[in-house]
Amino acid sequence: MSVRARVVVVGSGFGGLNAALRLARLPVEVTVIDRDNYHGFWPLLYQVATAGLGSDDIAHPIRSIYGRFPNIAVRLGTVTGVDLDAKAVVIGEERMHYDYLVLAAGSSASDFGIEGVAEHAFPLKTIPDALRLRNHILSTFEAADSDRSDGTPGTLTTVLIGGGPTGVELAGALAELIERNLAGDFRHLDVSEARVVLVELSDHLLPGFSEHSQQAALETLRRKGVDVRLETRLTRVGERGVDLEGGERMDASTVVWTAGVRANPLAGSIPVERGRGGTLAVEADLSLPGHPEVFVIGDLASGSGPGGEPLPQVAQVAIQGGKHVARNIARRHAGKRTRPFHYHNHGSMATIGRRAAVADLPGGFVLSGTVGWMAWLTVHLWFLVGFRNRIVVFVNWAWNYLTWDRATRVILAQGGDARRFPPTG
Amino acid sequence: MSVRARVVVVGSGFGGLNAALRLARLPVEVTVIDRDNYHGFWPLLYQVATAGLGSDDIAHPIRSIYGRFPNIAVRLGTVTGVDLDAKAVVIGEERMHYDYLVLAAGSSASDFGIEGVAEHAFPLKTIPDALRLRNHILSTFEAADSDRSDGTPGTLTTVLIGGGPTGVELAGALAELIERNLAGDFRHLDVSEARVVLVELSDHLLPGFSEHSQQAALETLRRKGVDVRLETRLTRVGERGVDLEGGERMDASTVVWTAGVRANPLAGSIPVERGRGGTLAVEADLSLPGHPEVFVIGDLASGSGPGGEPLPQVAQVAIQGGKHVARNIARRHAGKRTRPFHYHNHGSMATIGRRAAVADLPGGFVLSGTVGWMAWLTVHLWFLVGFRNRIVVFVNWAWNYLTWDRATRVILAQGGDARRFPPTG
Repeated sequence: MSVRARVVVVGSGFGGLNAALRLARLPVEVTVIDRDNYHGFWPLLYQVATAGLGSDDIAHPIRSIYGRFPNIAVRLGTVTGVDLDAKAVVIGEERMHYDYLVLAAGSSASDFGIEGVAEHAFPLKTIPDALRLRNHILSTFEAADSDRSDGTPGTLTTVLIGGGPTGVELAGALAELIERNLAGDFRHLDVSEARVVLVELSDHLLPGFSEHSQQAALETLRRKGVDVRLETRLTRVGERGVDLEGGERMDASTVVWTAGVRANPLAGSIPVERGRGGTLAVEADLSLPGHPEVFVIGDLASGSGPGGEPLPQVAQVAIQGGKHVARNIARRHAGKRTRPFHYHNHGSMATIGRRAAVADLPGGFVLSGTVGWMAWLTVHLWFLVGFRNRIVVFVNWAWNYLTWDRATRVILAQGGDARRFPPTG
Repeated sequence: MSVRARVVVVGSGFGGLNAALRLARLPVEVTVIDRDNYHGFWPLLYQVATAGLGSDDIAHPIRSIYGRFPNIAVRLGTVTGVDLDAKAVVIGEERMHYDYLVLAAGSSASDFGIEGVAEHAFPLKTIPDALRLRNHILSTFEAADSDRSDGTPGTLTTVLIGGGPTGVELAGALAELIERNLAGDFRHLDVSEARVVLVELSDHLLPGFSEHSQQAALETLRRKGVDVRLETRLTRVGERGVDLEGGERMDASTVVWTAGVRANPLAGSIPVERGRGGTLAVEADLSLPGHPEVFVIGDLASGSGPGGEPLPQVAQVAIQGGKHVARNIARRHAGKRTRPFHYHNHGSMATIGRRAAVADLPGGFVLSGTVGWMAWLTVHLWFLVGFRNRIVVFVNWAWNYLTWDRATRVILAQGGDARRFPPTG
């Protein structure tokens, strides 16, 4: 029996994955707990929602990633709490002991308490979310095509709430899907009536990006026909549309929420100070105050940047945090002092459609248009986990680019038991 | 306004697709009605169920197939009945007139009235079926891995009912998935305990194949460790296993039903003689008796071969039938007599795993082993609709072959509203 220290990593997103892969090199036993058996490559989720990629293309089985490390075990399950005093995580009825704990459980969509969001808006945080949205958008076009009446106002209108990277990328991809594919698919529909509206509370898109990129994104989206509404507050989502501050009501068959997240519900079980969106306050070395053996990374942590401002909830922060806590665990285990975490911003990117992207690189470099798009393609293929996924995504992208096609515009029934054994005729 | 004849095609599987593509060349208006917006390539469904291919790889959007033909319209919907006298198909509340009708609605899984099949067995007829089965098999391994008790008998046992091509192909692929992938994924489980059992009522596998192929399939499966039970009758499926005739009870966590189908429930609304499995009796030209303007093809028709025996319910019969009725509609429309349908058997194929397949070619040629497998690969890539699908499937196959990997072993939640906006923590 090994008496090596046991490290439990909760979550296998960007943060947990990078922590676990570094920890595997240490003389410790690592257990990774995740509610899903795959690592999702979330930056490409909007492409699954807009029929550019298949759902399996951005998922990679975690047992396949960790299989080559004899000291990493995988456990499928949802961690519901942490007993900090007993040093154990709680998975339903079971408790699992740890010597060191890495909390990397991420965030969930949050409706900020706005009326109707949870009931009527589509979040876009998981692969099932993306498939549900794809099914819904394609189904509204099918329903409009079958409709023999004069039609309902807003039948082909999609309202996206939130002008961050997900909202911007989704708006661009959706505008292209409609113009380039659905207009041809539905020749008997007046697809020019289809509208994509992007609602953003602040006076700019892409918070955290350079002003040049924000402006380029805005102009590109407007050129693609997206109705971008800046400084606009959503007050309510209903079954058939949204209400905006000032009294404007907009009919829409689809409302997508990308405006906000909050920390994984797991955070609620941990009695420490909470930051923005329910995140856990951490020390400079990313450990939990008073619990030097517990580290928190990624969207779950309210870390702070050099000026004390909160760190953005982006993949790079999670990746760097994961690597950093693995180093800190090695140091603590060796009896050395841990080191504070410093986030290095390697840049931000968002694609706005075919041959259009914005990229802010370190040193104030800014790319946009075709060059930005090539940079975006390269970086995303590079970071995509799994060689097969890289090839398949590359083939899909080459196909989409050369043919203007979106080949996965397939409505897959999600219903649990639907159509198992139909009644005999 | 056009006064051209209107042809309605119900279903866009192999039969409906081939009928519609031929009808598109005639001076008629064609409407294709399908409950799904995609054409599924069912011969590869078992590969989706065993994590070899992604669900989107075997689906092709029908609007993309028909988009280049101005005289084909697509309508998404379920045909619930046909008013033969009024010449109209019924889609819910709506009626659609036809001058000629092609019924190609296919078949559904049928439990043959065996107790517990509908409640506890997994059918494998649709893409959601395949995803449900993939999720279930992977989840049983995950659950066994988390189980701290001594385990439940049969936890890793899969029983497949029916020794036709689907049962044989699934058995071979599943045995390889377990041996080559899951054994490595679950190092702490004794995966050698995992069993694949194939139950067949008759004394041979692959009915309709040559005796050489039947024997080769049996030997190959047994060499892969599949427990093949010939001349064995299933009497009941329960929550935790199956009962076989003679009193044997077999514990199993997964029971898959590939033993029987019956005609689409639509057939029940049509007042003509019914053949095997509720199929519709047809004239020699594939028209409905007394209704020369209505044709029935594929799994929905009880056609007869040269000796009067029923035609097999396979893709080739549907494809040839579809082309034939398009020609007969052209002849009838031109005032000529229709021609009787003669099925040309171009051979049968089944793959049993890596470099193992059987193929019966015309003229009594039989291929097996690696050569049979190469033939199988070529034919299936050739017939797969959509150039993108061909490339992506080829990449996946090359990947699977070279790495022994099965990259889509991903458990995707199917639940309708699961995880939309989780409760705040």
